Amino acid sequence: MTARVLLPWSDISVPAELDTACWDGSGSPPPDLDGVEFYVLPYDQGSEPPKLIARLPSLRVVQTLSAGYDNLLPLVPEGVLLANGRGLHDLSVAEHTLALILAAQRDLPRWFAQQRAGSWAREHTRSLADCRVLLVGYGSIGKAIERYLVAGEAEVVPVASTARAGVHGIAELAGLLPSADIVVLVLPDAPRTRGLIGPAELAALPDAALVVNVGRGTAVDTDALTAEVAGGRLRAAIDVVDPEPLPPEHPLWTLEGAIITPHVAGGSASFHPRAKRLVERQLAHYAKGETLENLVG
Amino acid sequence: MTARVLLPWSDISVPAELDTACWDGSGSPPPDLDGVEFYVLPYDQGSEPPKLIARLPSLRVVQTLSAGYDNLLPLVPEGVLLANGRGLHDLSVAEHTLALILAAQRDLPRWFAQQRAGSWAREHTRSLADCRVLLVGYGSIGKAIERYLVAGEAEVVPVASTARAGVHGIAELAGLLPSADIVVLVLPDAPRTRGLIGPAELAALPDAALVVNVGRGTAVDTDALTAEVAGGRLRAAIDVVDPEPLPPEHPLWTLEGAIITPHVAGGSASFHPRAKRLVERQLAHYAKGETLENLVG
Repeated sequence: MTARVLLPWSDISVPAELDTACWDGSGSPPPDLDGVEFYVLPYDQGSEPPKLIARLPSLRVVQTLSAGYDNLLPLVPEGVLLANGRGLHDLSVAEHTLALILAAQRDLPRWFAQQRAGSWAREHTRSLADCRVLLVGYGSIGKAIERYLVAGEAEVVPVASTARAGVHGIAELAGLLPSADIVVLVLPDAPRTRGLIGPAELAALPDAALVVNVGRGTAVDTDALTAEVAGGRLRAAIDVVDPEPLPPEHPLWTLEGAIITPHVAGGSASFHPRAKRLVERQLAHYAKGETLENLVG
Repeated sequence: MTARVLLPWSDISVPAELDTACWDGSGSPPPDLDGVEFYVLPYDQGSEPPKLIARLPSLRVVQTLSAGYDNLLPLVPEGVLLANGRGLHDLSVAEHTLALILAAQRDLPRWFAQQRAGSWAREHTRSLADCRVLLVGYGSIGKAIERYLVAGEAEVVPVASTARAGVHGIAELAGLLPSADIVVLVLPDAPRTRGLIGPAELAALPDAALVVNVGRGTAVDTDALTAEVAGGRLRAAIDVVDPEPLPPEHPLWTLEGAIITPHVAGGSASFHPRAKRLVERQLAHYAKGETLENLVG
């Protein structure tokens, strides 16, 4: 029997020896899934696609297009390989991070409000150039953000979990906060990152510093951040928050110094071509019996 | 008599042999300006600072902090040197250009509207990565924009007035428009640039292309752009427009596909340290009798 692959797209190159079926996560999955050996989960389509794993008796490989995979570990049977989407979202997240930073530094909320009012009134703004940017989380996303910041002549201060040449360790964070104009958090949710930026860390930042969070909301104490922004001392530009969704009545929504986007940093068009290229490579590896990329779990 | 310099700031290094006076362009100029040989015009302070030129009998040098200087030529007496602020605004303009592009590609107006409504609703967006960006105007500002675009993995297609290795000539523009995802205009106001992007050029762009203007508004036919954006076929993100200010009742203000900022690309914080460093160098040159930088006119 020909090996089948279940894919979220119909427009990618698949080795001739593989048979394909397509499901983008909407509606019902196609029938006749007994032969599916390789399942590429549709991206960001909720809880139904992972549930299908249990209904694929011939399954050998699960490919997720997310970087995170903790939610899948309990669902992937013993002996089935799991590969993740490490790297696919780096550029999308970096781009959105720059959008948040520049929106805050160059006063986009003010200009958009003036636009709605049909008002043309000029004022000088902050800049990104020359700012000292603490980049907390220095994996592949952090490095993609750094390339943008370097192009913009900001001063980048990388911080990772452990110190190495040119990179500060997280233990040095307290000493770095007082001289930061901008702090960018690119951290996963983990016991070591939860509440990392609490009242004391926020208090250590200089007046008017900008807190940017594009990792996971749990890295920042939301109440403490809300208090500092409400008091006018700090500014915030965040794509993630704890809790998500931020409740409609939360005071952070309406603060003048806050910019909030709804966890959309990773979900842009740049993801799709990169995801398709990864899956094409993985299917070629699979057809030839080679080791897959991005294996986890 | 000690040579005097009239400066917009009091916090820069001045050679010991020069006497200083300070005027930031607000209120009245200081008294006793007869000895002023070197006048640094306050930046972006309207028409009063240039008028002072006529009241400085010992004047030898006028330093403007703008790149443009056409308005000063009739005011600078024969034999007085004029130096401009070429390069000081490059990074500020590049930064704002990226802010406009990313705001459009990553849907910031939508997220800001949701924020005002306290609404958390996710959707995937466009990206800058992989976009083909026509960069029309390839001087020092264009190159600063290019560095950002390269960091973001966009494909940059530079266009200058004349073709050279790796750079298209403006005569090739018509052939380049149909494959552009984004067109960035960084052009001065001049007979050759006025109306460069008219109805035919806009019609040549593919559906959903983004027109970005950070040079001078006259490069684009505003009525034609308004019609294409109103029809939903093109998008616009502009910092300059013809006329400026855009009248309050102009239909472009309220179009969903338009982002408008009020000619603020050059006026950000990154300008000031660069302007101060230039003036410090110029005063050192002047004190030593060396040739000044950025001489024009």
